[in-house]
Amino acid sequence: MRKPQNEQDVIQSIERAFRSTRSRALVLSLGDDAALWRRSDNKDTILTCDWFLEGTHFLRPKHPPDAIGWKCLARAISDIAAMGGQPACFLLSLALPDQLAGRWLADFLRGLRRASRATACALAGGDTTRSERLLISVAVLGEVAPGEAVLRSGARPGDLLYTSGTLGEAELALDQLPRREKLGRTANPALRKHLYPQPRLALGRWLAEKRLASAMMDLSDGLSSDLPRLCAASGVGATIDSNSLPISPLTGRSRALRLALHGGDDYELLFTVRPGKATLLPPRFHGVQLTRIGKITRARKILLQDSYGGSTPLGPGGWDPFRT
Amino acid sequence: MRKPQNEQDVIQSIERAFRSTRSRALVLSLGDDAALWRRSDNKDTILTCDWFLEGTHFLRPKHPPDAIGWKCLARAISDIAAMGGQPACFLLSLALPDQLAGRWLADFLRGLRRASRATACALAGGDTTRSERLLISVAVLGEVAPGEAVLRSGARPGDLLYTSGTLGEAELALDQLPRREKLGRTANPALRKHLYPQPRLALGRWLAEKRLASAMMDLSDGLSSDLPRLCAASGVGATIDSNSLPISPLTGRSRALRLALHGGDDYELLFTVRPGKATLLPPRFHGVQLTRIGKITRARKILLQDSYGGSTPLGPGGWDPFRT
Repeated sequence: MRKPQNEQDVIQSIERAFRSTRSRALVLSLGDDAALWRRSDNKDTILTCDWFLEGTHFLRPKHPPDAIGWKCLARAISDIAAMGGQPACFLLSLALPDQLAGRWLADFLRGLRRASRATACALAGGDTTRSERLLISVAVLGEVAPGEAVLRSGARPGDLLYTSGTLGEAELALDQLPRREKLGRTANPALRKHLYPQPRLALGRWLAEKRLASAMMDLSDGLSSDLPRLCAASGVGATIDSNSLPISPLTGRSRALRLALHGGDDYELLFTVRPGKATLLPPRFHGVQLTRIGKITRARKILLQDSYGGSTPLGPGGWDPFRT
Repeated sequence: MRKPQNEQDVIQSIERAFRSTRSRALVLSLGDDAALWRRSDNKDTILTCDWFLEGTHFLRPKHPPDAIGWKCLARAISDIAAMGGQPACFLLSLALPDQLAGRWLADFLRGLRRASRATACALAGGDTTRSERLLISVAVLGEVAPGEAVLRSGARPGDLLYTSGTLGEAELALDQLPRREKLGRTANPALRKHLYPQPRLALGRWLAEKRLASAMMDLSDGLSSDLPRLCAASGVGATIDSNSLPISPLTGRSRALRLALHGGDDYELLFTVRPGKATLLPPRFHGVQLTRIGKITRARKILLQDSYGGSTPLGPGGWDPFRT
């Protein structure tokens, strides 16, 4: 593939890659000053955006371009899942070095298009420019019926605390990440989760529609950093049963537990359920494990209970870009 | 102001700055996984996003933080004006170095809030992280009645070509830019235009509502680069009368003409009008000059006519981040 000469060439690469992924709701997408989107009747619009920056959120020598394309969209869509919504379309802000505007861009767009198709979230528009480092910001629009969105603020003392999937494997994989040439289409489940996270859209929709979750958020920075946010929004605390955490079987128990508590990038759903509704939750939903990991308390503390009934305060140990 | 310690502190600075600028249409804004926006009935949603990057779009030693805050939103909203729409809300993606998280951030947020209030465009949400360079991406949502948006693709041969305001002054000011300490609240009109561009919202709305403009876009990269985009989208060409261009009186004619043709960052509206409707256009609209600068032609070329009736092809000489 020839190297693009100017901004118009980069835009054309993007247009070509997404030509077959149009959405009827997009009255107008690429090629004008802005896009036009005709949203469904009687739905609220969900809005979210996420940075995905070289050196901060991914490492260019290690992460394959198609995984960067997949993940930049998947992680933003995870916020739509965490509201119980359905994604609709997205805007791509892409700043890239000259030497990435050819083959690298084509591979990146392939991963991005796969994520776009898998989540039925169409490219509406965006902005491209040149920069020394690779910079990505993705803004996603989703839809949800009025009153159906599950907020962080709905948890009450006595609610049971659940998580989907396994915790800590994405960060486990980060430690094991080989150079990207060796990655290919890896079968390692932790690596796949790290490179191609699956936003829990079906689960989020189901929990919202059935009014099963009283509060919900996605786990992006790590349980010990994210749970306090849900608790603060709800004005409550929580106790986690360390024995019940769905830790990874791929490493030793002590390391797996630490990763489950503090590891980032899992994009699982953390949600609370009123005790009377707990029996309505299956152990798995569409193949994704659902685990009760603790309960919501009146005392505004986050406590970790061990096997012997003792409990210790759990401080935020997850990812924070401003902590050195 | 104390220096923020972590991401939560940066988010709180943003929340404090925008506490008084809530919008009723925002059912939920900052503080959850995503924002919820209840758009007006029977309106299409306009979507656009714009990079604003240190070193590419602004110079941190030269541009005051409140101007960076104003301009990052104003230039994205200019795309809403160019569709004939009304802005509704925006998402702020902000990545900043540690040392800017205190006083600099407060000044930046003041400028951003002024632009938000001036355009009735509320902060819906965003994402913050740390980076070595200051990185900003703004996504704006606007509204327009179905069928009322003015696209780039509606120009026909014979249409008359107009621009709002004066062309070239923003880039003229860039050449004259003193260090930011000396700027203060400058009265220099070119500098004010460079630092605090005014998106032509009222004009864009009026042209759309009255169905006066057949095609429209905003001038962000420069007339010689932007006009070919409008012409390509419409499948037409254009002839510009160099004598009629609204050039700046603040510099010599030859330099002013070059800046009017190739200077970027003006955020004026470029639009076409069917000949039969030209008499409906006043010479000024709400104080903003409207100037007929040429006409649309069947031949798909961009020509510049001089005073003697001669004409020369006009190549794109405006801003392109991928051109070295």
